[in-house]
Amino acid sequence: MKAWLNGKIIERTDAHIAISDRGLLLGDGFFETMRAHDGKVAWLSRHLERLNSHAEMIGLDPVLLPNADETARAVTSLWENLDGSDAVIRLTVTRGSGPRAVLPPTDCNPTILMTAASFAKPLPDNGLVLATSKSIRRNPWSVASRIKSLNYLDNIVARREVAAYGADEALILSVDGSVGETTIANLFAVRDGVFYTPASDCGILAGLARQFVIDWCRANDLVVHLTSIDPADLASMDVVFICNALQGIRFVRTVDGVSFDLGRASDSMLVQLAGMLEKSLCLGIEF
Amino acid sequence: MKAWLNGKIIERTDAHIAISDRGLLLGDGFFETMRAHDGKVAWLSRHLERLNSHAEMIGLDPVLLPNADETARAVTSLWENLDGSDAVIRLTVTRGSGPRAVLPPTDCNPTILMTAASFAKPLPDNGLVLATSKSIRRNPWSVASRIKSLNYLDNIVARREVAAYGADEALILSVDGSVGETTIANLFAVRDGVFYTPASDCGILAGLARQFVIDWCRANDLVVHLTSIDPADLASMDVVFICNALQGIRFVRTVDGVSFDLGRASDSMLVQLAGMLEKSLCLGIEF
Repeated sequence: MKAWLNGKIIERTDAHIAISDRGLLLGDGFFETMRAHDGKVAWLSRHLERLNSHAEMIGLDPVLLPNADETARAVTSLWENLDGSDAVIRLTVTRGSGPRAVLPPTDCNPTILMTAASFAKPLPDNGLVLATSKSIRRNPWSVASRIKSLNYLDNIVARREVAAYGADEALILSVDGSVGETTIANLFAVRDGVFYTPASDCGILAGLARQFVIDWCRANDLVVHLTSIDPADLASMDVVFICNALQGIRFVRTVDGVSFDLGRASDSMLVQLAGMLEKSLCLGIEF
Repeated sequence: MKAWLNGKIIERTDAHIAISDRGLLLGDGFFETMRAHDGKVAWLSRHLERLNSHAEMIGLDPVLLPNADETARAVTSLWENLDGSDAVIRLTVTRGSGPRAVLPPTDCNPTILMTAASFAKPLPDNGLVLATSKSIRRNPWSVASRIKSLNYLDNIVARREVAAYGADEALILSVDGSVGETTIANLFAVRDGVFYTPASDCGILAGLARQFVIDWCRANDLVVHLTSIDPADLASMDVVFICNALQGIRFVRTVDGVSFDLGRASDSMLVQLAGMLEKSLCLGIEF
């Protein structure tokens, strides 16, 4: 297996990170997880746009990041070793090495890493079982919460917690007790044809698939509320689903034991939305 | 320069981390920063106790961590290359490598890294200039906030923000707007001989030096309140100081432009406290 590290394709076993890398020592960096099909990355310009905005938020010069051509060439080189036609590409950026200090050096030399792994689309299933984390909540006053940073420990703790309850995924509330997101996806709920999703100030990472769903609703004259959602109100929803730019839309069967009728998820409108999102990811159609 | 990596002393330039390490990719780990003098680590059993409790909180078997003897031997080996008699030891633990997933594998093989660097005690100064971060607040509902995790991006963002205001350090509030801590130290305020420090549920990392100060107050029949502190109340305090297990006590000159009379910091009680803490760190006296 190969990896792309700082502009070079090398064997993964030869790809190493210095022990002084601030990504390792302090979580000083961010990443993107991108879906690719037959060697082409879906939503590449959106992903790179987000990468640039992440860099600006933490004070890293975006000019140091790979551009679309470079990323596409790296993915082509990584593709050789993959089985199947679908892959997940992870593009990781750290601020690179520096002396011991929280305040980063001004002249940094980022570490940029790309890896690819075969991706199997989740099969149609009986819906996800979600459980609310009792220990972890999202913080709207955290840059690490709002961007796809290397700071995933709270997600890991929440995911371990709900695995012990037998759940597939953790629902994480915001500090004010409103619905936030899961460890890897944004949440939507639908009632009487109206869509609800937590607003971007609810401590969430406002993902690309979330934006796809919002745009699709608006293009189809469907009402979508970006708002604060009381978890108690989820029980009155017809359908709950989560979405991200890797797995698309996945419907939820239960949240903390409250069931949703998955028959409602086969509503033609939702089937159309899930299909459009999957097609956009699979064919790499920018939106 | 040498590093201790997974039980072996090697050249730092030969010490590398795999690109699949969850510490790098997800911030899945924690660390301790320890003061050492003439090859002996201060407060070693306290640091290792905390390391064990951190491991338990994220579901890593503490038996995989180095014990006191092993840590002391590693520090002896690292000492050879150092100038001076004081050093800072960083002991970093990650969950090690794993397949792509937030949920960690059950059979992990942690990465354990120790490095040493010469440490110069901060000279007596005119006091620190603190500025409150406007962008970052601490989250009491975050394990990453409460333990010395590898998730330091919020601290980095806050530190960069206040550097732009010309401050030495960032004061970070808790999400409820009460006083939290700085990026690397706990905060105390003193008024009429009574000590105040944010309670451990204020989203802080309750550090070892904080515990030293609390214990010292109680042993000396001084009142110390572990409480919620309104930042507006800081202006009425006689003295504000921050503390950690590396630099000991450092007095604060201003917070957001509000000045404190550093003459008050030379109150014999506070001089005695700062001296006792420094002596405990320097001589490695457990408390």
